[in-house]
Amino acid sequence: MNQGTSREAVLDHLRELLGAVGVLVGPQAERYGIDTRETFGARPVAVVRPESTEQVAAVVRVCAQAGLPMVAQGGNTSLSGGSVPRSENSCIVLSLSRMNRVLAVDPLRFTVTAEAGCVIQSIHAAVEAVDRLLSLEWGAIGSASLGGAISTNAGGLNVLRYGNTREQVLGLEVVLADGTIWNGLRSLRKDASGYDLKHMFIGAEGTLGIITKAVLRLHPRPRHAQSMFASLPQLHRLPQVFALARDVCGDNLSAFELIHGGMVDRIVDTQSALSFPLTERSPWYILMKVGGSGPVESQLEAFYEAGLRDGFLGEAIATQSVQQENAIWAIRHEMIPFRYLRGRMVKWDASVPLDVIPEFLDQVVRAVGEIDPLAQVIAFGHVGDGNLHMSAWPRCDVDPEVLEQVVMRITAAVDNLIWAFSGSICAEHGVGVENLLRLRGQKSDVEVRLMRALKSTLDPANLLNPGVLLLPGLADE
Amino acid sequence: MNQGTSREAVLDHLRELLGAVGVLVGPQAERYGIDTRETFGARPVAVVRPESTEQVAAVVRVCAQAGLPMVAQGGNTSLSGGSVPRSENSCIVLSLSRMNRVLAVDPLRFTVTAEAGCVIQSIHAAVEAVDRLLSLEWGAIGSASLGGAISTNAGGLNVLRYGNTREQVLGLEVVLADGTIWNGLRSLRKDASGYDLKHMFIGAEGTLGIITKAVLRLHPRPRHAQSMFASLPQLHRLPQVFALARDVCGDNLSAFELIHGGMVDRIVDTQSALSFPLTERSPWYILMKVGGSGPVESQLEAFYEAGLRDGFLGEAIATQSVQQENAIWAIRHEMIPFRYLRGRMVKWDASVPLDVIPEFLDQVVRAVGEIDPLAQVIAFGHVGDGNLHMSAWPRCDVDPEVLEQVVMRITAAVDNLIWAFSGSICAEHGVGVENLLRLRGQKSDVEVRLMRALKSTLDPANLLNPGVLLLPGLADE
Repeated sequence: MNQGTSREAVLDHLRELLGAVGVLVGPQAERYGIDTRETFGARPVAVVRPESTEQVAAVVRVCAQAGLPMVAQGGNTSLSGGSVPRSENSCIVLSLSRMNRVLAVDPLRFTVTAEAGCVIQSIHAAVEAVDRLLSLEWGAIGSASLGGAISTNAGGLNVLRYGNTREQVLGLEVVLADGTIWNGLRSLRKDASGYDLKHMFIGAEGTLGIITKAVLRLHPRPRHAQSMFASLPQLHRLPQVFALARDVCGDNLSAFELIHGGMVDRIVDTQSALSFPLTERSPWYILMKVGGSGPVESQLEAFYEAGLRDGFLGEAIATQSVQQENAIWAIRHEMIPFRYLRGRMVKWDASVPLDVIPEFLDQVVRAVGEIDPLAQVIAFGHVGDGNLHMSAWPRCDVDPEVLEQVVMRITAAVDNLIWAFSGSICAEHGVGVENLLRLRGQKSDVEVRLMRALKSTLDPANLLNPGVLLLPGLADE
Repeated sequence: MNQGTSREAVLDHLRELLGAVGVLVGPQAERYGIDTRETFGARPVAVVRPESTEQVAAVVRVCAQAGLPMVAQGGNTSLSGGSVPRSENSCIVLSLSRMNRVLAVDPLRFTVTAEAGCVIQSIHAAVEAVDRLLSLEWGAIGSASLGGAISTNAGGLNVLRYGNTREQVLGLEVVLADGTIWNGLRSLRKDASGYDLKHMFIGAEGTLGIITKAVLRLHPRPRHAQSMFASLPQLHRLPQVFALARDVCGDNLSAFELIHGGMVDRIVDTQSALSFPLTERSPWYILMKVGGSGPVESQLEAFYEAGLRDGFLGEAIATQSVQQENAIWAIRHEMIPFRYLRGRMVKWDASVPLDVIPEFLDQVVRAVGEIDPLAQVIAFGHVGDGNLHMSAWPRCDVDPEVLEQVVMRITAAVDNLIWAFSGSICAEHGVGVENLLRLRGQKSDVEVRLMRALKSTLDPANLLNPGVLLLPGLADE
């Protein structure tokens, strides 16, 4: 039996299991093969769309038997190429998009249970209806799925206060590489009954099992919330400003963002719907959000008074209405450099310890400048948890080969700086395929060996999202 | 070479590595073989006391080569027998007690780095000196060690607000079963760079590796804190009282305890140093703690007013001084039933979802009563996170064999109820050896198979804490 026949037989088997609507091929399947930014992907053998855990398990059993690799896909909003095929006709896309139900919201338990294909925004809606808070908050929650968020341990704006997606997961249901269903759908806050298996699958980018359902932790909704946008004239004061904010506001501080002045200029000068909220421009700003069960206004005032007195902060505005709140955060959400700069972008989703950020950014600018004196560097992000979104823009009016050299040198120089400052080049977007080779420089041989051992144990035939996340082995292997 | 000679050779080798002070045998070694409650343990071959990670690694390599099992031990405060040998002369105790240094406290990063043998209380002291909060808080923090707390994912009083020990761990250093050192001592809040390996070792009770150092997350210190002790006349109102407390106090609610009236009576009637804080006795009480960056008194008042109006709460007292605070919590810390009741104790460290606790306790009392109408049931605990410490006290004036039968029937009946209510019989004390066989009823075959696969991958020769945590396999294996 040649491969073609064999694959046709597999597809027939899958159609028997799911019906024609559950198996897409040809043009219908193609869009699932490409990521949303059209950077990664390849044509899948087929797109399989199960609508229950049992159907996912049946699909995995059929594919495992046929040796056909599977890429699990949710909202397909991965920025690192983790949710699409690596090469043409090499695998099926297992789309969870039909498993999109919120199964239970429990306000007394502070939990929500949902299927992996659920769009995060729809879970928010269900949770808000019973006056609870789901902490997952980032730009793409209107299209990102729960399974994808868990598989990449997604970060976002609220990590400082509530932790990453991992910390929200109380229980998981997972289909293993052989089609076995592991039901770990618990809602307990304390359960020291052996290895906590769910953590193997969280952040594993679909390489160890396929997440089908999850129970998430909910939080009390803050009754009072307010944001402040303030000039930060001197970047090197950032650590003190953060310490001051946390000292005064305590756990009420839920977001602490560093904003790049040059980007603000570009945004407010070109977007007529957005206006600059202060009177004088500054090289840097901070944007912070405070919320709690009691009034927070006096805390923001006390923070600002102290920051002004110590010369750390310049002009500032505290939001007084929902409209003002939305207007200020709209500037933050518009911080998308490739909309405003032309040419080749070299980008990082990095994290370093917060207290070294000023020194780190100084050295990044210097290192990039040594390679290309005309290159621009843009940096901003969720610095309250050490997360910096950086991009470098080398001059493009050069020979493409020269530019490629410059890009490689800038990448290597900044990666090395991130590591020298004890940071990570993958903060919240995952490894995917984009960061696979570069990440090898961040991981010790011991760590790579442990990761590979875990993979061999749970997916010995390498059928689950092959080519993603798992780093190349040692030179002598 | 017979076993005796071989062991002597191993001990000589260990003495070469650590010096005579690092290797204890005979009477000096014996106390390390027995747990603090003298319930579990056996004489070790020797006690080995390395003072650095490199020494731990060297010890593990020597023992691995000789096939000699190792039990890692910290403060030896395990309540489940997880830190002592199972059988005479079967293994060495690898004591981390000489690795007891706080290595770094970083107030700007909100982190502390310490060696595994550090007593939790000493980490608190270092952290408080820089105005930060470590959330680990339970009765034994004056003797429990960091490595033990991480290895059992210890719970305690503050889990409702801050999470378990697991959620405090940012980075780990671990010596693997072959003596390799894995350095995962990171302090990053966001790091989605592949499998998060530290979670394999957290809560693994020393069966997958030996934790040598850790980086922990710190929190802002609440500037204002107050506790309330209130009568709860009707247990079935507990879920509404909790919901009310969290609605009014939000994330400021850091502890929410259920207190057993009969135990309070026994304690205040026999301990002259402790006095009953209200005027009228009640079958149940709640004890809660609220703390935040702003004043919390008005929140406690609003909570109590609403609870009184709805008829959920009776008499109450809010603490007005540190003395009063300590006096009320002293009653809670004295809730140690075996000091007050005579006879045979059957006990559970259970967790169930908070909203079912009243119905669950009703059924526990009924089930125990059907087996022994004279048995007493005591229940209290950190119910804000679903954690109940329960004990049953069957009548003892019967034939020992009959009593044993009664104990077994009560154990099985309550275990089954815990599971029927989606709970765990191991909430915060770990599996150890005490819960090993009973826990099999809580775990699916799939879960046991996954746990065993993880163990085989990381400790193929079964040399790390053998006989602990790992559940018996399937009947047909």
